[in-house]
Amino acid sequence: MYRRESRADAGSVTEGRKHVAKVANIYYAVDPWKITEKGFDKDHSRVSESIFSLGNESTGVRGSFDEGGSIDSLRGAYINGVYDMADIERSYRGIVDKVHFMIPACDWLDTTIILEGEKLDLGKVKFCDFVRELDMRTGILTRSFVWETAAGKRLKLCFERFLDMVNRERVYQRITFIPENFSGNITVKSGLSFETVHEGRKKCFWKDVIHKTLEDRIMLKASTTKSGQEVFSGAVIDMPGERTIESGEKTVRISACLNLTEGKTSAVEKRAVLVFDGSTGDALIQKGEELLSKCGQTSFDVAAKEQKAYWDSYWAVSDILIEPGDTDAKTRERVAAEQQGIRFCSFQLAQTYNGGSFLHNIGAKGLTGEAYNGHAFWDTESCCLPFYLFTNPEAAKDLLIFRYNTLPMARNRARMLDCEGACYPIATLNGDEACSLWQHASLQLQPSTAVAYGIWHYVKTTGDTDFLYKYGAEMLVEIARFLKSRAALGNLTGKYGFYGVMGPDEFHLMVNNNAYTNYMGKRTLEFAAETVKELGKADPEAYAKLCEKIKLSPEEAEKWSEIAENMYIPAREDGLIEQHDGFFDLPHTDIDSIPVTDFPLYDHWSYDRIYRTDMIKQPDVLMMLYLYNSSFTENVKRVNYDFYRQHTIHESSLSPAIHSILAAELGNMEDAMDFFGFATRLDLDDYNRNTREGLHITSIAMAWANIVYGFAGLRSDGDMLKFSPRLPDRWKELKFSILYKGRVINIRMERDITFFSCISGEALKIRVYDSEYTVSHSELSVPFGG
Amino acid sequence: MYRRESRADAGSVTEGRKHVAKVANIYYAVDPWKITEKGFDKDHSRVSESIFSLGNESTGVRGSFDEGGSIDSLRGAYINGVYDMADIERSYRGIVDKVHFMIPACDWLDTTIILEGEKLDLGKVKFCDFVRELDMRTGILTRSFVWETAAGKRLKLCFERFLDMVNRERVYQRITFIPENFSGNITVKSGLSFETVHEGRKKCFWKDVIHKTLEDRIMLKASTTKSGQEVFSGAVIDMPGERTIESGEKTVRISACLNLTEGKTSAVEKRAVLVFDGSTGDALIQKGEELLSKCGQTSFDVAAKEQKAYWDSYWAVSDILIEPGDTDAKTRERVAAEQQGIRFCSFQLAQTYNGGSFLHNIGAKGLTGEAYNGHAFWDTESCCLPFYLFTNPEAAKDLLIFRYNTLPMARNRARMLDCEGACYPIATLNGDEACSLWQHASLQLQPSTAVAYGIWHYVKTTGDTDFLYKYGAEMLVEIARFLKSRAALGNLTGKYGFYGVMGPDEFHLMVNNNAYTNYMGKRTLEFAAETVKELGKADPEAYAKLCEKIKLSPEEAEKWSEIAENMYIPAREDGLIEQHDGFFDLPHTDIDSIPVTDFPLYDHWSYDRIYRTDMIKQPDVLMMLYLYNSSFTENVKRVNYDFYRQHTIHESSLSPAIHSILAAELGNMEDAMDFFGFATRLDLDDYNRNTREGLHITSIAMAWANIVYGFAGLRSDGDMLKFSPRLPDRWKELKFSILYKGRVINIRMERDITFFSCISGEALKIRVYDSEYTVSHSELSVPFGG
Repeated sequence: MYRRESRADAGSVTEGRKHVAKVANIYYAVDPWKITEKGFDKDHSRVSESIFSLGNESTGVRGSFDEGGSIDSLRGAYINGVYDMADIERSYRGIVDKVHFMIPACDWLDTTIILEGEKLDLGKVKFCDFVRELDMRTGILTRSFVWETAAGKRLKLCFERFLDMVNRERVYQRITFIPENFSGNITVKSGLSFETVHEGRKKCFWKDVIHKTLEDRIMLKASTTKSGQEVFSGAVIDMPGERTIESGEKTVRISACLNLTEGKTSAVEKRAVLVFDGSTGDALIQKGEELLSKCGQTSFDVAAKEQKAYWDSYWAVSDILIEPGDTDAKTRERVAAEQQGIRFCSFQLAQTYNGGSFLHNIGAKGLTGEAYNGHAFWDTESCCLPFYLFTNPEAAKDLLIFRYNTLPMARNRARMLDCEGACYPIATLNGDEACSLWQHASLQLQPSTAVAYGIWHYVKTTGDTDFLYKYGAEMLVEIARFLKSRAALGNLTGKYGFYGVMGPDEFHLMVNNNAYTNYMGKRTLEFAAETVKELGKADPEAYAKLCEKIKLSPEEAEKWSEIAENMYIPAREDGLIEQHDGFFDLPHTDIDSIPVTDFPLYDHWSYDRIYRTDMIKQPDVLMMLYLYNSSFTENVKRVNYDFYRQHTIHESSLSPAIHSILAAELGNMEDAMDFFGFATRLDLDDYNRNTREGLHITSIAMAWANIVYGFAGLRSDGDMLKFSPRLPDRWKELKFSILYKGRVINIRMERDITFFSCISGEALKIRVYDSEYTVSHSELSVPFGG
Repeated sequence: MYRRESRADAGSVTEGRKHVAKVANIYYAVDPWKITEKGFDKDHSRVSESIFSLGNESTGVRGSFDEGGSIDSLRGAYINGVYDMADIERSYRGIVDKVHFMIPACDWLDTTIILEGEKLDLGKVKFCDFVRELDMRTGILTRSFVWETAAGKRLKLCFERFLDMVNRERVYQRITFIPENFSGNITVKSGLSFETVHEGRKKCFWKDVIHKTLEDRIMLKASTTKSGQEVFSGAVIDMPGERTIESGEKTVRISACLNLTEGKTSAVEKRAVLVFDGSTGDALIQKGEELLSKCGQTSFDVAAKEQKAYWDSYWAVSDILIEPGDTDAKTRERVAAEQQGIRFCSFQLAQTYNGGSFLHNIGAKGLTGEAYNGHAFWDTESCCLPFYLFTNPEAAKDLLIFRYNTLPMARNRARMLDCEGACYPIATLNGDEACSLWQHASLQLQPSTAVAYGIWHYVKTTGDTDFLYKYGAEMLVEIARFLKSRAALGNLTGKYGFYGVMGPDEFHLMVNNNAYTNYMGKRTLEFAAETVKELGKADPEAYAKLCEKIKLSPEEAEKWSEIAENMYIPAREDGLIEQHDGFFDLPHTDIDSIPVTDFPLYDHWSYDRIYRTDMIKQPDVLMMLYLYNSSFTENVKRVNYDFYRQHTIHESSLSPAIHSILAAELGNMEDAMDFFGFATRLDLDDYNRNTREGLHITSIAMAWANIVYGFAGLRSDGDMLKFSPRLPDRWKELKFSILYKGRVINIRMERDITFFSCISGEALKIRVYDSEYTVSHSELSVPFGG
């Protein structure tokens, strides 16, 4: 996706054989289940805040220090779906004149600690034994260190926090104190604050803050300035000592003096709720109070235990186990890092989105930072969906229902573009198009075809025709209408195509007959026509209802089929597909000759210069060969892979995974491993040097796909599931499970053999390499190569 | 050119044979030399303000009522080169983050008249006998009417104004009063005001106003808010009666009570100066005072006499005389309107630009309104220059020196675009690119090639090699360098071309091998290489100096020649030139099917929708056939004319003239007259319904070209001047003069014969139709067709 606010998404020059020469910045200790920071590096502060982000889909919080201070920090506690808006100058029809963006919500970690007049601020005080640790088996983030005051008093502190994965409005914080060499008082203030400023826009977007306090609890309700959303935040704070309540305009805090005893543990525990459910005013306050009461009755320890159980059950189905081969220690360490990396990816995905709400989608940065405005892009369906389809199909469905619920906005957007049907936004939180760059918002059709693909993929892998008929069909009809009205007949080709578009490769715009767009359009139109026909047969009543609701006539589907049949796909005889009309004539850019300092190109090249050579940002044609993999021959894949990888600069972090998956399929394991390179540790090792802005949530979804589609060779777009296992040299074993149509299937790849078993549900026919097998309870073993 | 602020530049659907079905809104009386408004129509107020604009290149003022009032008005007294600036949000490299725009300057017409407590306001008071009249032989605008007060007092008023064409800092206003049925007092306030608000930006851009007043004169000095420009304005006011001075923050006025006598004439005369010459502070005030003193000594009548002499000498060389044929009265009236129209065009062009200053260029709206921000576009060289070349070659030279003086900004712009050399701006007042739309500012190369063409055309028609060597060569080198760095080799064509451009046809963007751009680039590179070579031979010293100044090496010119030689021009065997790669395949738009209410398309169509069909805004290919007319065969012209006129929607007001000129050349007089249609009266009859915003200065330049190039068939791009007279049926005679290399040549076309005579200067060889002749003092007559 394009970049606007944030500019550091560095691709890098390819060097020799290494196709993506990004360099790891190794900082965290390698451990199978934990991310640990030992000692604190101020310059790494924002990166760690991103890495140690917690989320439970409903809310998210960066790993910032509870006590704030002078350390460089992007402070942000976010609530999914909470945003504000800004008008932008109206220019031409079809160009958005209003944008919306995620804003930091209530800062519930707000804490001040004072010892002997010295305020805890790790940017200023003396401290040692700093350890920050995220345990992916519990979802709890801890941070401990020893604070030594100017007078030599040593106080050990431990901060713990987690976001409840079950009762998602609940968040927990605990701070424990052990004086090592003294007894005496400390002052602790703990509160809630709606004062946090949106860093990019240099503004606090909260107003009309209403306070309510009881003896042991504090509550605030606040409204956003323009979007009119209301949020309730309340906290029960267990804190020994005499308490005072301090209220500011947008803050409320409980302050107390704690009497500490040398060697003894004292604790402050905060149990808070963040309520955002569409209710407003007194109703919201009442609801918030009730939820706070329940939360207040569940202690940190009790909730943490439930949290552990949640993650246990999550890992039971979602874990990917990688064992290193019997190689040298360095390689073993590398594989251990990959193991840790892929778990981090799974963990963050589950934190960002795990279903249950139709109001959320998956932001490019999840709930981990302001970059990309919290917007979700077409990556959701094209990159993230497979992860959910095979680990949490209900969540996959919920993602699609989000699109169903935002159909009215997509219809409206199509109208703005003088088109029929529905056009899904390239960037959105609430369903409205929020991208103010017309060259993206008006020319990129892939959000709409991605939604159709998502429906297709979801129905194919779940068999959920109920969903298809109840939700999918209507979306498909509207998307097909949009495509129909946007397609046109070429004067020379006499075929249909999309003119004046920008494909996923955002280094070419206003192009004609973009192969990806045309092909995805063709498949979408076919699927829509089939679905309508199928619905008519399978459920005539539902069909009649749909026809009435959206004035659907049978001729429409016929027209879609005609357009699909006559869609122009520009391919040469040898199978090489031209990315778009005229691509082959474009002047050549030798991507190896671009100085590393020129990256990211959006920052260093004149804007127009990016758009006129044969250099591509991410591989449109390969993307399409990945998505509809079984529809293309190996030869077509090889010819196109060989051609396009030479032209791709990977300024999209999604690009290498597509290359890796196809390289693995083509047996080019060297390329596959090169491109896999940083997939699992993109953020942990800050390969792009911009993790400080937040995590690359959709990229880490592709890390999962890189392993499962790449090395296990899963293909889910054909008539049955297919695997073509190819274990990387440095791995001894790769083990994971997938959920598939009510089954749990275990896959265990060893060097020369792969084992399949269906540990729950009926036996299933699958294809492994080129042969069919039935996988059931008893273990099926297939030798390498079939 | 594109439109941003202003949106009413309506083209219109073509209907049947009529290619540009715009409809006249006839309002002013037809007269050979005057524009007269008899009776006042409030709804026509802004249009009349534009039509009655006065200018003397240095300053301009709309025809607004001196006394202001509640009538709908766009009040603006402009000073050429006076602008202010605004920052815009920084986005990507190469996209401007600062714009500049012409602002209304000192309102020197500021007048208040009170009679018996009733304030003169034509929106409120009772009046009759309203006549407003512009005499193009004197440049004086008069307005008279009789004001009848509630009590029945009848006062006849006459307002006169003119802008001195010789002493251009001087402006004159006279108001005369004749009480028809009473004697008594009126109060008159006359002053200067820097309070005028920029209507589009809703802001007054003047600050730090310094006052100075003497007994009979008032003075103000003011500064712009951001551009740091300073303007002095002073007025000597002759006003009988006791005078009081009233000073406001940004205003100063003299107020007096005039004792009027029934039937007698009293007058108030204001002689003012507007000084803007780069000087500042006290120096500016001192200079202003001196200029005001001189001005104050020259009465309205004396100055008006000089003014008349100026216009007499202007018309002696610049007039175009059209005599109607012996047809019906309606047709004769139509021709009379054409006669008036073409004089209005010449008059307004001379008011806008007539040379002598290198600081000004020709704004798209001249000094007649805020639209287009006062910016000059590439139209200056491509559309306006011929008028000056053949009526005022010194002014043509000055226009080119403006480009020379702004070479540093053009160099800077090229750097911003990652290119070498110099890139001239698409829109500018001061030389800096001021267009914030990257798709225009970064993709349109025609400003640079137009400057090169202008130099070429100027040198060809004047033989002024001094200019070429002193100024032209350096510009040409820098433009050639820019083009060299912007051109690239096509991977398939193996030829050079410009990729990712927007041609003059602004309905296609980010196209490759745009024929116009490639061809103009080719000719520019050739001309630059020739010029450098020629300079080396003709003036080795100057050449050496230039080489040193701009580090020019001989290899550079060789490279330009190589690129020019290998430039790709996409033409079919039958001569049809493809506007750009892929144009022939673009989906068809039936331009006849577009509802009239859809125009202008920029307002009614989704922005992206404009860019993806075979509909074009203005004819790139035809433009190139017009500019380098002698380089193309008649067949090529015919084939391309026939093809492109079907696709052209004329949303540019320059488009019809190009069609008309080529149609005349091809003997298609029906088309030629259809397209000529509104050329001479575009603004007088408000064909585009947006004259209220200001006059279409560059379009009216094309009206001159439409007659001289179209019906006299002048061609000035070949080895000698050529004429191919084709007199429109409804004309009996067309008579005009041109200046050419020190000669004055008279051309008089009759139905079957054309007379040429060289009334000043040496005899000249010319081509008429296809034969060569020598034109000298004695009249040469050539029958129709040669």
